[in-house]
Amino acid sequence: MNVTLRGRTQHFRTVTFDAKKNCVQLIEQRLLPHEFKIVATKNFRETAAAITDMVVRGAGAIGATAAYGLAQGALAFRGNDLQKFSAHLATVYQTLAEARPTAVDPVNALNDVRRHMACGKTVAEQQSLAIAAAEAFANEDVRHCEEIGKHGAKLIRNGMRILTHCNAGWLAFVDVGSATAPMYAAQAQGKKCHVFCDETRPRSQGATLTAWELAQQKISHQIIADNAAGHLMQRGEIDLVIVGSDRTLGRTGEVANKIGTYTKAVLAARHKIPFYVAIPLSTIDWNLKCGFDIPIEDRSESEVLGAWGDLNFKSGIVNSKTKRAYVRVANPASGARNPGFDVTPAELITGIITPAGIFKPKELWRQRRKLGFAK
Amino acid sequence: MNVTLRGRTQHFRTVTFDAKKNCVQLIEQRLLPHEFKIVATKNFRETAAAITDMVVRGAGAIGATAAYGLAQGALAFRGNDLQKFSAHLATVYQTLAEARPTAVDPVNALNDVRRHMACGKTVAEQQSLAIAAAEAFANEDVRHCEEIGKHGAKLIRNGMRILTHCNAGWLAFVDVGSATAPMYAAQAQGKKCHVFCDETRPRSQGATLTAWELAQQKISHQIIADNAAGHLMQRGEIDLVIVGSDRTLGRTGEVANKIGTYTKAVLAARHKIPFYVAIPLSTIDWNLKCGFDIPIEDRSESEVLGAWGDLNFKSGIVNSKTKRAYVRVANPASGARNPGFDVTPAELITGIITPAGIFKPKELWRQRRKLGFAK
Repeated sequence: MNVTLRGRTQHFRTVTFDAKKNCVQLIEQRLLPHEFKIVATKNFRETAAAITDMVVRGAGAIGATAAYGLAQGALAFRGNDLQKFSAHLATVYQTLAEARPTAVDPVNALNDVRRHMACGKTVAEQQSLAIAAAEAFANEDVRHCEEIGKHGAKLIRNGMRILTHCNAGWLAFVDVGSATAPMYAAQAQGKKCHVFCDETRPRSQGATLTAWELAQQKISHQIIADNAAGHLMQRGEIDLVIVGSDRTLGRTGEVANKIGTYTKAVLAARHKIPFYVAIPLSTIDWNLKCGFDIPIEDRSESEVLGAWGDLNFKSGIVNSKTKRAYVRVANPASGARNPGFDVTPAELITGIITPAGIFKPKELWRQRRKLGFAK
Repeated sequence: MNVTLRGRTQHFRTVTFDAKKNCVQLIEQRLLPHEFKIVATKNFRETAAAITDMVVRGAGAIGATAAYGLAQGALAFRGNDLQKFSAHLATVYQTLAEARPTAVDPVNALNDVRRHMACGKTVAEQQSLAIAAAEAFANEDVRHCEEIGKHGAKLIRNGMRILTHCNAGWLAFVDVGSATAPMYAAQAQGKKCHVFCDETRPRSQGATLTAWELAQQKISHQIIADNAAGHLMQRGEIDLVIVGSDRTLGRTGEVANKIGTYTKAVLAARHKIPFYVAIPLSTIDWNLKCGFDIPIEDRSESEVLGAWGDLNFKSGIVNSKTKRAYVRVANPASGARNPGFDVTPAELITGIITPAGIFKPKELWRQRRKLGFAK
């Protein structure tokens, strides 16, 4: 999407591949929103490290990064020996697959690229196929998000006030995003909306990433404390909720997403505000039979006990030199509990916005052939 | 309550009066939890400034501070001229009453002290009466909190896991607190409980003040992001919710409290978890007929857009020199919406814990004589 740098607006993807230099180019997301920087990884190990270290995050974005990383690893191989190439590739695959062990997207992406490569008869052929497959994977991610936008934009009427949680924007994908896609599509259709971004403690992805995206895209928005949405709903100031999902159960319609999503769904149901979840099809888990069985990661206490931000920020001063720092907010002697995700039951979800259309959560299973279920 | 300083546990009140030195002694709450310091105000203007600048905060605590401030101002008068004394007192009253214009407690406290002074026939008599009345006011605040504790402790069974929001602890009163009083009383009865403290963004009073109190009092606790309570309730990890209130409507049972309280009440109702509000009687507003008419203060955007904390904190290092700093968390170009309070309807409240017993919110009006309603 658009980024304005020194007054000039350019289009960026979160991840691209430079085949000539054989490097993967990534928006360094850990510096956002205080600094915009593109980093280039020189080899597949650096690409894997960028996934591990969260230079890049978000299901679609790390999937494409892994796909490009495999192509990068393949391209770095010198010689024609197919057997040696295959052994080298196994190392590349393993390194990238292990970069973020709990995520399913990198592995799916790697398998996709490897499947395409299998048609090549020489090392050179396989190398070209790897690049083509990785590019196709990234492009499909963008196309899926655009489809989500097309379907989701129908829900947005001019002047609507929309709540979103965490970041399910283009920074989490290759471009466009999932929860943000309907907003961007509606904007392109000339509709205006105002977005309330939950700051999304403890990691504040709403205040940092989503707000940055919306500001770059010139969409009217305000950041709110996670505590404030209930009050705004009570006062009739929210018309629609759209969030993303880390895993959606195809059998039950339950949605696992960033901690706090469930709370917003409960509030929306009470106030009869439509609550939608926007997802690419890769997010659907067709196996798990119960949301309670989704493992909920307990994350580091330090996330809850303090905050990361810019120490040098002065309101009104543009381009001040940023200095990222962690401050301990909480009582020094106290600990924290930090579940990273929660599960929202189907009954609280108005609809699931997918590239293939909008479905009631309980409909997913019946529509599974259409939604890419493979068994 | 207890504070342990350099290994020695002492008892403190948030506010006390030293008649010999004619100064009001306050816990400097803006430095907590990173530093514990008592400040002494030298005259009534400094006392008013301490209220304005939030050295002291919380309904009961600022009420007592204003009462002591009036005594301090009275005591500073030299001479026997009752007319001049009366003019001087009017200035003292006015200065303290205007220190926090929206709060009702300082004015109630000032009126109480002034009423008692009126019995004095000389300046000296009025001065002694002022001190006695201010002390009585502070002691009554403590006694009321102890009564809340006595009634509330009956709700706590051994091993319970209790959620609280913001700080309605002893730091907000002269001692003991409102929402914390049942926990402290239960502890004194030998019952163990575990408290989840909502961090309570944007000002983080749960992570800073409540967690500090509970740690000093050696009550088992963990800080959670405001987003996490819903998930913990879903998993059956919260048995009881106790919060405080800034204003409770005697006619309807509606409760205004820190932003996010309403959300917790909605979640508790969904999970059939008892939700109690602990209040001193001074918090009851017998006039207002509808919670929607309670003015909700829109506070500074900077609270939501960043965080205050200790820049020098290193885990494991005791007594590191703290350095308080503000970091900008949010996107530099984005703004925020920051409502400070919300209103919880009576239907979501299991009971109101008062010094006079526990009542259903709708019962308050019927029991108004017992609850100090005066008309």
